[in-house]
Amino acid sequence: MQAAVNELEEKARQAKAASKKLAFTPTKIKNASLLAIAQTLLEKEDLILRNNEKDYREAEASGMSAAMLDRLMLNSSRLKGISDDIKTVASLPDPVGEIIEERTLPNGLLLSKRRVPLGVIGAIYESRPNVTVDISVLCLKAGNAVILRGGKESSRSNLALANTVQEAAYKAGIPGGSVQFIESTDRSLVDHMLKMKDNIDLIIPRGGAALIRFVKDNAAMAVVAGGIGVCHTYVDKTASVNNAVAIAYNAKVQRPTVCNALDCLLVHKDIAADFLPGLAQEWARAGAEMHCDRRTLEILKSVHGLTLKPAVEEDWGKEFLALVGAIKVVDSLDEALEHIERYGSGHSEAIISEDKNSIDRFLNEVDAACVYANASTRFTDGGQFGMGAEIGISTQKFHARGPMALREITSYKWCIIGNGQVRP
Amino acid sequence: MQAAVNELEEKARQAKAASKKLAFTPTKIKNASLLAIAQTLLEKEDLILRNNEKDYREAEASGMSAAMLDRLMLNSSRLKGISDDIKTVASLPDPVGEIIEERTLPNGLLLSKRRVPLGVIGAIYESRPNVTVDISVLCLKAGNAVILRGGKESSRSNLALANTVQEAAYKAGIPGGSVQFIESTDRSLVDHMLKMKDNIDLIIPRGGAALIRFVKDNAAMAVVAGGIGVCHTYVDKTASVNNAVAIAYNAKVQRPTVCNALDCLLVHKDIAADFLPGLAQEWARAGAEMHCDRRTLEILKSVHGLTLKPAVEEDWGKEFLALVGAIKVVDSLDEALEHIERYGSGHSEAIISEDKNSIDRFLNEVDAACVYANASTRFTDGGQFGMGAEIGISTQKFHARGPMALREITSYKWCIIGNGQVRP
Repeated sequence: MQAAVNELEEKARQAKAASKKLAFTPTKIKNASLLAIAQTLLEKEDLILRNNEKDYREAEASGMSAAMLDRLMLNSSRLKGISDDIKTVASLPDPVGEIIEERTLPNGLLLSKRRVPLGVIGAIYESRPNVTVDISVLCLKAGNAVILRGGKESSRSNLALANTVQEAAYKAGIPGGSVQFIESTDRSLVDHMLKMKDNIDLIIPRGGAALIRFVKDNAAMAVVAGGIGVCHTYVDKTASVNNAVAIAYNAKVQRPTVCNALDCLLVHKDIAADFLPGLAQEWARAGAEMHCDRRTLEILKSVHGLTLKPAVEEDWGKEFLALVGAIKVVDSLDEALEHIERYGSGHSEAIISEDKNSIDRFLNEVDAACVYANASTRFTDGGQFGMGAEIGISTQKFHARGPMALREITSYKWCIIGNGQVRP
Repeated sequence: MQAAVNELEEKARQAKAASKKLAFTPTKIKNASLLAIAQTLLEKEDLILRNNEKDYREAEASGMSAAMLDRLMLNSSRLKGISDDIKTVASLPDPVGEIIEERTLPNGLLLSKRRVPLGVIGAIYESRPNVTVDISVLCLKAGNAVILRGGKESSRSNLALANTVQEAAYKAGIPGGSVQFIESTDRSLVDHMLKMKDNIDLIIPRGGAALIRFVKDNAAMAVVAGGIGVCHTYVDKTASVNNAVAIAYNAKVQRPTVCNALDCLLVHKDIAADFLPGLAQEWARAGAEMHCDRRTLEILKSVHGLTLKPAVEEDWGKEFLALVGAIKVVDSLDEALEHIERYGSGHSEAIISEDKNSIDRFLNEVDAACVYANASTRFTDGGQFGMGAEIGISTQKFHARGPMALREITSYKWCIIGNGQVRP
């Protein structure tokens, strides 16, 4: 164990040293390295998929759920997708050096706020091996060194991917040491990593609620946490029923195991009888179970083929991560807003409405990272938002909120250029 | 003590409730309340100065240093200055609702990043009573409720100022409870306050190094810390000697007790003999003591009337907060950059140079909140930067860096407007 701790500390020191060079590495070299990574991933497909298969078989034998196995699995087309995302990140503007604000003060001082990297980012993540690549690539482009600490279940996949990233990046001119991968999956290493505030500037935890809480409670450095999504969709009395069915179906069914999937449907009482039976039939066809309040049960009880349960208090504010949805009929927009304030996790919330005032109130008053009008919450994603990929989705208000990509892992500095000014 | 804890908790709950209304309070009401505060402060001058005089006498009797007494003292013209600063903040654009980014995605979704308040800001501060007003006013304008916990030495002044702010703000339409003042100065209340993460979103500590470290180590919520300034001025071989003398004099002498004052002068060996004697004579006239490295002593030993001491290792990286400066002759810009990286606190650093390459390298490579070329580090200040006032000066890279005013105490949310989009 002491050997693993020593190795972790040495890798963190190397990352810190590399970050000081990486901060000044030209955009051209950073982009070339990203394209080299994208290319090398495809060239090493056999090696990567072979290692992923070993992880997958072991996880399957250990009884991992189908949803988790799906997150772990890589194949040729998924690898191609990862490679394409890297090319998108390469094509985005370099955030480093961007002038955020600039003005000349009355005394002639030229003041500019310039974007700079944060330094070293530590990522602690579970399951999905593509995170190894996404986070490395975003960190390199934004001039940050990175220390990767993935989960045990995908350790062979992560190692193969990290080795590929390192090899391609260093060959293309990225300073050696910029990408560090921690091979040991000993849990106590995480405790140690969370105390290394001299060499790690920011920790990003990605995984289940337990991991995120542990990191937030124990990290000595800054943490951006998120990923817990208790997402509501409110169907206003003025909603287009067709839109509402299509959006609520997509938000619940298209990928139910992820954080931006719908957990709770709030329906205005004046549209409930028109909207709920059709939606419930669609959900039922996809195999969804519905946890309904009294008024919803009343409306749905005569519809055949539904799996209905009376909702209990624990259903409100629950992240199901499965084909289960809670449904509640509300008297007003105000009641919907109160419900969301009380039970939401500040991730993604939506209103379906044709009334401008209701939409404006919802967009203004809901306090969440992403607030939607007439669209599915499933769009909350760095790739979907045009950010190329994402480091994670922040549900905190501090530093960055929502999908985090290049700009979100930078800081800035003030540069002040004068010609002899002194303070009177 | 339990009564004080209960009161603190009740006030925090009130602040949280108020913050939800304050987030939507119109700009017009916020600006009117700021102007009312500016006006009422002048009307209550007698009451405020009477209370300040009591604080001052007590502090004087207790043996407080002249520098600290000066920070504590209010008078008619200082009160006028505070009132004028409030008017400046009122005249600045409202950060809340600002569209930071906006784009239409290929699928027609309209994506916008809108600025929103953080929620409740807790301020823990020492000595200077104007902080009570500065922080309240910036928080109100940015839509944040505030909980003020000032130092014991200025408790009467703070109470009189906070009462004035509350009275004027609420009369002008600010939601009741938005400004909370903690009267008890019991130190253990701070411990308690630092755990109240459900009702306080951000803590700003302002005061000495011990207070700031304590808050950083113990706060359960986000902290923006700063204010510790170990500031260097590097005189390049190409510097204009006149500029260099004027700037180094201003940076050390104009107000030596503050964080942005010069602590260490780094001088290129090729200009040292031309520059140092003149500068040292100016510093000596102001009463400054100089802690010099060997080469500086060599140059200055023949100059009369100087207070010279050989520098010891502890002089590098020391925040003097007094009329004392360390001086070191360096061989190159690289040596200056290394010295600053090793000993600087990331606050304010300056180069005096006529060479564009040296200036560019210094501005790019120095990792500090504020990096100057040919100007005094004394300008690091929200007021001087045109931000109206400041909440504090952040020396961290996370969330905000350098002087913090309105924008720096906000977050943002993503608003996504569609017409039925679902994720394929």
